Amino acid sequence: MNAAIDVLQSTHQHINRDRLWQSLMDLAKLGATVKGGVCRLALTDLDRQARDIFVRWCEEAGCTVSIDAVGNIFARRPGRNPNLPPVMTGSHIDTQPTGGKFDGCFGVLAGVEVLRTLNDLGVETEAPLEVVVWTNEEGSRFAPCMMGSGVFAEKFTLEETLTKVDAEGVTVGEALNAIGYAGPRKVSGHAVGAYFEAHIEQGPILEDERKTIGVVMGALGQKWFDLKLRGVEAHAGPTPMHLRKDALVGASVIVGAVNRAALGHQPHACGTVGCLQAYPGSRNVIPGEVRMTLDFRHLEPARLDSMIAEVREVIETTCEEHGLTFELTPTADFPPLYFDKGCVEAVRGAAQGLGLSHMDIVSGAGHDAIFLAELGPAGMSSCLAKAVSATTKSKTPHPMIWPPGVRCCCGRCWRRRMRLPAVNWRLEDQRIAGFGSAHRRVGAAEGCDLLLFTY
Amino acid sequence: MNAAIDVLQSTHQHINRDRLWQSLMDLAKLGATVKGGVCRLALTDLDRQARDIFVRWCEEAGCTVSIDAVGNIFARRPGRNPNLPPVMTGSHIDTQPTGGKFDGCFGVLAGVEVLRTLNDLGVETEAPLEVVVWTNEEGSRFAPCMMGSGVFAEKFTLEETLTKVDAEGVTVGEALNAIGYAGPRKVSGHAVGAYFEAHIEQGPILEDERKTIGVVMGALGQKWFDLKLRGVEAHAGPTPMHLRKDALVGASVIVGAVNRAALGHQPHACGTVGCLQAYPGSRNVIPGEVRMTLDFRHLEPARLDSMIAEVREVIETTCEEHGLTFELTPTADFPPLYFDKGCVEAVRGAAQGLGLSHMDIVSGAGHDAIFLAELGPAGMSSCLAKAVSATTKSKTPHPMIWPPGVRCCCGRCWRRRMRLPAVNWRLEDQRIAGFGSAHRRVGAAEGCDLLLFTY
Repeated sequence: MNAAIDVLQSTHQHINRDRLWQSLMDLAKLGATVKGGVCRLALTDLDRQARDIFVRWCEEAGCTVSIDAVGNIFARRPGRNPNLPPVMTGSHIDTQPTGGKFDGCFGVLAGVEVLRTLNDLGVETEAPLEVVVWTNEEGSRFAPCMMGSGVFAEKFTLEETLTKVDAEGVTVGEALNAIGYAGPRKVSGHAVGAYFEAHIEQGPILEDERKTIGVVMGALGQKWFDLKLRGVEAHAGPTPMHLRKDALVGASVIVGAVNRAALGHQPHACGTVGCLQAYPGSRNVIPGEVRMTLDFRHLEPARLDSMIAEVREVIETTCEEHGLTFELTPTADFPPLYFDKGCVEAVRGAAQGLGLSHMDIVSGAGHDAIFLAELGPAGMSSCLAKAVSATTKSKTPHPMIWPPGVRCCCGRCWRRRMRLPAVNWRLEDQRIAGFGSAHRRVGAAEGCDLLLFTY
Repeated sequence: MNAAIDVLQSTHQHINRDRLWQSLMDLAKLGATVKGGVCRLALTDLDRQARDIFVRWCEEAGCTVSIDAVGNIFARRPGRNPNLPPVMTGSHIDTQPTGGKFDGCFGVLAGVEVLRTLNDLGVETEAPLEVVVWTNEEGSRFAPCMMGSGVFAEKFTLEETLTKVDAEGVTVGEALNAIGYAGPRKVSGHAVGAYFEAHIEQGPILEDERKTIGVVMGALGQKWFDLKLRGVEAHAGPTPMHLRKDALVGASVIVGAVNRAALGHQPHACGTVGCLQAYPGSRNVIPGEVRMTLDFRHLEPARLDSMIAEVREVIETTCEEHGLTFELTPTADFPPLYFDKGCVEAVRGAAQGLGLSHMDIVSGAGHDAIFLAELGPAGMSSCLAKAVSATTKSKTPHPMIWPPGVRCCCGRCWRRRMRLPAVNWRLEDQRIAGFGSAHRRVGAAEGCDLLLFTY
């Protein structure tokens, strides 16, 4: 390890920071919103335009581009040994309707910048390198999310996926054909030497801990439920308190229980009620029904189940006490995932070798890397990023971004997987100061929507 | 008192139960919904048809009908002394979109049945009798509610009221003209000898206490608020619990506080959160904003204010603790109202005199009688009624109704105000048995909407 760090520190090179930035900004023009964000839904014509640019850039970088039947795009830079499975990197370029400039795109364009830098330096890698754009990671036009990587990893069948429809009844298959991205390549059965995904941080952990790099150990298991509570709808005036069956009073106890269960299972536990609606929703009618969602996450399956059991007990007690009935329906169940130890160690070692502050973190969200981890060794680096998204009124004209994740990937871990010499590309100008205060200012600003977090 | 009871008990007469029932059923055909309820919004053509029937029935009963500029309809049966201000009774015939057959209509048609019964018996009253239909009590097409009685009592100006618009931009004035009910009579300045309003029970109190008559003492004061809580919207996965500013977790504490404040100020206190919505309303996003309504009611102004102060303190503490900001905006403020002691005593005395079980109650809801109480002595009788409304799947084909409120009004109280001889109309066939179980069955039934409660 020490030897590796010595080598890294003695031989670092720079990627072209301005070129990466320019690529991000060029892509962000497609679907740019008036407030500075991006709305580029999967398989729309804007997505087609973004895909066309990615393909052109990769071909200009000497890559061979192929497209599979679900629209995933693979840009391959040959290695010395064509028999080795490729080392892959990538992410997605579709966005949420109120998306930002960097989510997904950073992982893809960091990969493109690596291609270009390898070319600039005349480096030939042992294994081939593939930069991938996965189809419909966001899932906002077509469900489910992580669609392209899901079919690639055989979590979803191609046939069923192509029949999924958007709100207007257009199928994934029709949309792929319409934009010319239903490719001839078979989706699954592709050997993966390793997969790395660089992502800006979506959460506030790195910022809170003042670290630059998050070494992503794994991904939280997730169990989601729909909960419907039924009481008796009645007039808020003439119905005395002791005769009520108020579904919202019951629901409020359950919201508190979800929060307490998560607080009681730290670290890594998350518990969230994201949707809650009271029916009929009239200010002088006692709510007779509440529909809400429950989202539990943990890295340890047993503790995930404990959280759910605790909340379930509160649901039962509360319904008994308030005269309510309930229906609890599971809607999603993803087991916890640990990334490949070698890949995780590669990310950590690179951060150490580069002298970057870092910490182990766990991804709370879904990522294409989670599906890819089933096909080969996979890892993720998370980098401290604070870029102000779409709807903020921040006066910062130029979003700040620190992509040391690229450096990590191009540093030790890729070097190891790709039989690269110890090469290190460094980004200058890491403007970290003033960061917490910007967060607070933006977070409190009227009309601000989302800070563009990392993953 | 005893003498009065003796007289009442010795000289009771019957109203024509079947005729009252038939009138209720005839009116209920206008806007009848497939599920057995009525949708007859104010100032629609269906409302016009119902008004036309009321006018015809009253003219057939020998009344003079006049209509004022806000569409209130007055059917006058002359008394011996035309200089006495009339004794008035009435209610409304507009409904909510999912209204039942009896709310409002019972009060109006009980009045019509009284007119007819006085005619049948050849009774001439001392003061004139007026049966009134008030315009737009429900407020579901045009806000505010209790519109006709509100203009009559000079709580709202005629000019402003006529400019109120429905969801399609039609004004009250236009709608009145369209159905031919913008009358020539001046709205205000009408002398009121007394006003009584009979209403079926909207709440479950009489049923719960197994009483037939509610002697309505007054109406709860009401203070309503809109509350907006703002936290920080963030991804439910990557945002650890200790860094969240979850507006819904805060809101749930406040829902509990509203409930506790009302429980702590019994009797008469009500506290309700009828509307609550979490934004953006995505299952894996921490709610950054919650909008909710607060509805506080009490008969004593000081305790109403105490409830609000207690909840306000919880709002402040909760926002401090969870990093939220809030806006609390008052939206309505009606002071508590006590009905005229003489009228209240008349209702109570009639119930006693008729040997009906009864109890003092307080109206928790708004009624035209509340505005009328500002113009003259007013009172309300609430009668135990259990009629199954619009959307229930109850197999009872014939809704049950017990209108002893009519008997009360026609008994002692009206007799006293109208210089009537002690006359008592009695309804036979008070099918009270099996009532609680019907409530439970219907209340728990899938798809049931509202039991048609009291007054």
